[in-house]
Amino acid sequence: MANLSLRRARTIIRKTLEQGREMALKPLSVVVLDAGGHVMAFEREDGASPGRFQIAHGKAYGAVMLGMPGSAQMQRAEDQAYFMAAVNGVFGGQVIPVPGGILLRDSKGAVLGAVGVTGDTSDNDAAAGKAAVEAVGLVADL
Amino acid sequence: MANLSLRRARTIIRKTLEQGREMALKPLSVVVLDAGGHVMAFEREDGASPGRFQIAHGKAYGAVMLGMPGSAQMQRAEDQAYFMAAVNGVFGGQVIPVPGGILLRDSKGAVLGAVGVTGDTSDNDAAAGKAAVEAVGLVADL
Amino acid sequence: MANLSLRRARTIIRKTLEQGREMALKPLSVVVLDAGGHVMAFEREDGASPGRFQIAHGKAYGAVMLGMPGSAQMQRAEDQAYFMAAVNGVFGGQVIPVPGGILLRDSKGAVLGAVGVTGDTSDNDAAAGKAAVEAVGLVADL
Amino acid sequence: MANLSLRRARTIIRKTLEQGREMALKPLSVVVLDAGGHVMAFEREDGASPGRFQIAHGKAYGAVMLGMPGSAQMQRAEDQAYFMAAVNGVFGGQVIPVPGGILLRDSKGAVLGAVGVTGDTSDNDAAAGKAAVEAVGLVADL
Repeated sequence: MANLSLRRARTIIRKTLEQGREMALKPLSVVVLDAGGHVMAFEREDGASPGRFQIAHGKAYGAVMLGMPGSAQMQRAEDQAYFMAAVNGVFGGQVIPVPGGILLRDSKGAVLGAVGVTGDTSDNDAAAGKAAVEAVGLVADL
Repeated sequence: MANLSLRRARTIIRKTLEQGREMALKPLSVVVLDAGGHVMAFEREDGASPGRFQIAHGKAYGAVMLGMPGSAQMQRAEDQAYFMAAVNGVFGGQVIPVPGGILLRDSKGAVLGAVGVTGDTSDNDAAAGKAAVEAVGLVADL
Repeated sequence: MANLSLRRARTIIRKTLEQGREMALKPLSVVVLDAGGHVMAFEREDGASPGRFQIAHGKAYGAVMLGMPGSAQMQRAEDQAYFMAAVNGVFGGQVIPVPGGILLRDSKGAVLGAVGVTGDTSDNDAAAGKAAVEAVGLVADL
Repeated sequence: MANLSLRRARTIIRKTLEQGREMALKPLSVVVLDAGGHVMAFEREDGASPGRFQIAHGKAYGAVMLGMPGSAQMQRAEDQAYFMAAVNGVFGGQVIPVPGGILLRDSKGAVLGAVGVTGDTSDNDAAAGKAAVEAVGLVADL
């Protein structure tokens, strides 16, 4: 299980959106990145604001590039704001350090990629993504 | 029919990928942007190179922002290369002026968004996208 | 053989430099990127000019992101200069489309990463890298 | 001893990685820059996250360009965050102001370059690099 397939990425997105509807969340947007931080698939629900790709991407991209999920990045940003600001400098301003950036790990802990979820509160975004990742048999590191 | 729905964007992507398989093309990547040039949905087939989001996006983004499909942009680039280079300056280098950037129009000609297809030759990319757009009842301006 | 190890990346670099000395080339600089286009290892020989990391990286990065080795990119740049210029826009100006950007493939053709070699003529750069890639049992797509 | 050689840069990297294994640190990534702030050599251990080149580079680059090691930059960031933010403006966002950016000095105090280490805590990164720099007979200013 070294790589994510498009089929699996698509399922993670679909299940995140379903979970969002079950939790009665605002319209969600969900991206799946591969282990190199490159976009595999994305969907933005009707009614979401137009800039949601960039936010979903920023959550997932930071997780992959740093090997740290959104909640750990947020902790670091709260402890040492200038560090996360500097990290954003070296990654071209592409990192959004809050929950909703979830590392996808296999059963051995290897990182297969990341999911980025945005649209509701950061914690709800993360919860919806977690349920979807676990539904496809992967470990959600959020 | 003023707006694209996620459902329709998803169908355009799925049908483009099916068309690519029927035409025996290389793995394709397909993005759908809304009328504001913002990402609605994207999928990259397994086996495609990692940078395909950026290329698909560049084709569709230029189409929406300029109101000109990829083939018209290519003609302009061949006639007046410095113009398309300057266009890229004002749009932050986000425009790829070749076929495969297709405007989505309704029956009255209004632009609803654009599709960007990449992976095979530019002409094959455009042909696969055209078939998908027409299959959902829209006009493909390529 | 799904991934490159640091050990193998290091060997490719060392053998490229040895090959450069055998061919009596100017001082070489060699980078190895993984399949996501991220830097695994780099060395710049004494006497090389200071900007060689960026050039080696640009050759290898373009190869990975586009799935096209340097010689194919050069051909495209000669046929359709505005296309390669636009590609550089979407990849942040990080692409150097000349020989010396070599895709690393396994025996089944899967891309494991890329090598970027710079310092002498582009063709000599590519030849030195090719010998090194083949010495570690991989296929050099240059 | 006015300049670093590739041989010495390579030894610093190798000894930093060995030190990391002795200290049981997470996988490390190590860059060596010359006195002009340009990349001489880099290695990323297997298992490190893909964005580690940028972070290692940011630590070492700031040290060379400012003539201040990472700990002094961190102190400045904590005392006067807007100053380090402004520094990042003029250096294109390339500076990571935390420990792990180590100036390489000769016995007379002249700066020969810098090492950047990342992967574990900033303090552990700095300790591993310090041991390596001293092992090659240079002074580590961290």
